[in-house]
Amino acid sequence: MSEERTEVSSLGEFGLIDYLTRNIEIQQAGTVLGVGDDAAVIDHFGKQTVISTDMLLEGIHFDLMYTPLRHLGYKSVVVNLSDIYAMNATPTHITMNIGFSNRFSVEALSEFYEGVYAACERYGVDLVGGDTSSSQKGLVISVTAIGEVAPDQFVKRSTAQKGDLLCVSGDLGAAFLGLTLLEREKKVYREHPQLQPDLENQAYIIGRLLKPEARKDIIAYLEEQDVRPTAMMDVSDGLSSEALHICRQSNLGCVIYEEKIPIDDQSRQQALKFGLDPTACALSGGEDYELLFTIRQEDHDKLVLSEQISVIGYMTDISEGAHIVTKGGNKFKLVAQGWNAFEQ
Amino acid sequence: MSEERTEVSSLGEFGLIDYLTRNIEIQQAGTVLGVGDDAAVIDHFGKQTVISTDMLLEGIHFDLMYTPLRHLGYKSVVVNLSDIYAMNATPTHITMNIGFSNRFSVEALSEFYEGVYAACERYGVDLVGGDTSSSQKGLVISVTAIGEVAPDQFVKRSTAQKGDLLCVSGDLGAAFLGLTLLEREKKVYREHPQLQPDLENQAYIIGRLLKPEARKDIIAYLEEQDVRPTAMMDVSDGLSSEALHICRQSNLGCVIYEEKIPIDDQSRQQALKFGLDPTACALSGGEDYELLFTIRQEDHDKLVLSEQISVIGYMTDISEGAHIVTKGGNKFKLVAQGWNAFEQ
Repeated sequence: MSEERTEVSSLGEFGLIDYLTRNIEIQQAGTVLGVGDDAAVIDHFGKQTVISTDMLLEGIHFDLMYTPLRHLGYKSVVVNLSDIYAMNATPTHITMNIGFSNRFSVEALSEFYEGVYAACERYGVDLVGGDTSSSQKGLVISVTAIGEVAPDQFVKRSTAQKGDLLCVSGDLGAAFLGLTLLEREKKVYREHPQLQPDLENQAYIIGRLLKPEARKDIIAYLEEQDVRPTAMMDVSDGLSSEALHICRQSNLGCVIYEEKIPIDDQSRQQALKFGLDPTACALSGGEDYELLFTIRQEDHDKLVLSEQISVIGYMTDISEGAHIVTKGGNKFKLVAQGWNAFEQ
Repeated sequence: MSEERTEVSSLGEFGLIDYLTRNIEIQQAGTVLGVGDDAAVIDHFGKQTVISTDMLLEGIHFDLMYTPLRHLGYKSVVVNLSDIYAMNATPTHITMNIGFSNRFSVEALSEFYEGVYAACERYGVDLVGGDTSSSQKGLVISVTAIGEVAPDQFVKRSTAQKGDLLCVSGDLGAAFLGLTLLEREKKVYREHPQLQPDLENQAYIIGRLLKPEARKDIIAYLEEQDVRPTAMMDVSDGLSSEALHICRQSNLGCVIYEEKIPIDDQSRQQALKFGLDPTACALSGGEDYELLFTIRQEDHDKLVLSEQISVIGYMTDISEGAHIVTKGGNKFKLVAQGWNAFEQ
């Protein structure tokens, strides 16, 4: 956070919006009208509009003690774009509502918006609206992402077929391990404020938590390879939970092979340091923002060259249930133990 | 609030969404995919998409001590639809994010959603997505409204012309007086809990605060009369503030005649009881959700029969500034004293 501190009240609400949106550059040809009126106007030129929305609340979804505001702004956008990509669509616009207490200065909000704009630029989306408001306590963020897709080319969760291969992008479990690490360091810091945090060699897992990316590249690759997933969603609550969503919504079962689940070496090492099972971190960790999707078996060879896509199992008849086959050859029922916001 | 109390944790997050969205009936032909996937899909059939979003925070925007949850759900939707109408567009879809602490039961959330669905039904919009989340404290609501408009038929704030007539729908100031009344009764109740609240004959002003409507009827009437406003916005922060927005964004001045400002008799009487100037309530009160718009002078006769539209002044050159002419014939500079969220 920079050292200057400008009180928000010195700008007023409209002054603040003007200030925070002063550098917006419109990137989308379809943006007919952006920030500054009652609503934004978008021309999708005959495509279908795809909408997703998410709320991030301080103390529930993030901890400002170890989350830089710039990263938080970036992540707030990215987690919403991830949902649009998960529909096989292209995000084009976002709106951003934030509520904040008077402990936030204009400089702090500017840092947050720097992250927002960095994400907009990287993913080619326009910020076209939103609301700033005071809150009694804590930072409240709500983002809506709008995208487009050629008519009926979107991919749902409910359309996987028996025999389809279950695939996942990137690797899993790292964000959860990053969170576990930062929570541990926070606890140490509280007990021994003089100690320096021990974050050596942890850049990958911390980065996965604090600054995730949406898998735009995977959607582009699938299109290049002319592979249309039969079902798709993003992994925000852990592999188990998401695989069970696809099963339930497609009315199928599945088999996942433990040895096929992609886990980065740093994640694996960190899990072992914590005395955690790396596979359990991947299954239940969450916040990976990878894509979980199913493809027809005949498309397998088209994806075999990508190091970013792992085939981890296949879809079965619903009567066979959803299972994981361990490295030792045992078969266990898949259970969703993902992060449940209501059990905290 | 009903007497049963079901803990949210007994349903789980996905169970809760399923439960709260179980009665959704799709009303819009353009709704290709609604709740239950990563995102919703909308087909606008070649029209432009209009997007608006707003956040409502407990303790800042509403007080649950005197706001029934059903009304709050209704109002959360309506205030967003109002922005879409203010673009001369038709709302078609909404998404709704809510965050709530564990003091809210499933029954309480159901009441809130009853109001949401009542508004959706009344205005013919589909709820197509959203997120429920726990919050550390207080109820947090964020709504995004999506609408459609025939290409380039939307109406901005910045396109009023010199000489245009300034018009407003309905009447102004009532919601502010309803708020003042309820805040007074809350104070009385806290000091003397045995006293019954004195809300006799106050249904109108309280209703205007707790259950506002968006002026869909005015947009329909203008279209019937073949009048396209030259500029338009909705009145959420008080007439002064909004008139100054139109002036600033259209690069014009204006004159408003005090005697022409529509104020309901109940509002007038209540203002006088409180020792307030009724005109000041209309100018600075806010939350009326009426439409403020400008029309060409030649369109005047087409609107003269509507009792729901008042011509309150006209647009001038910017060099003449923005003024109000009082009943006594004095001229004062118009100043925005609207509710400022950052000065509370």
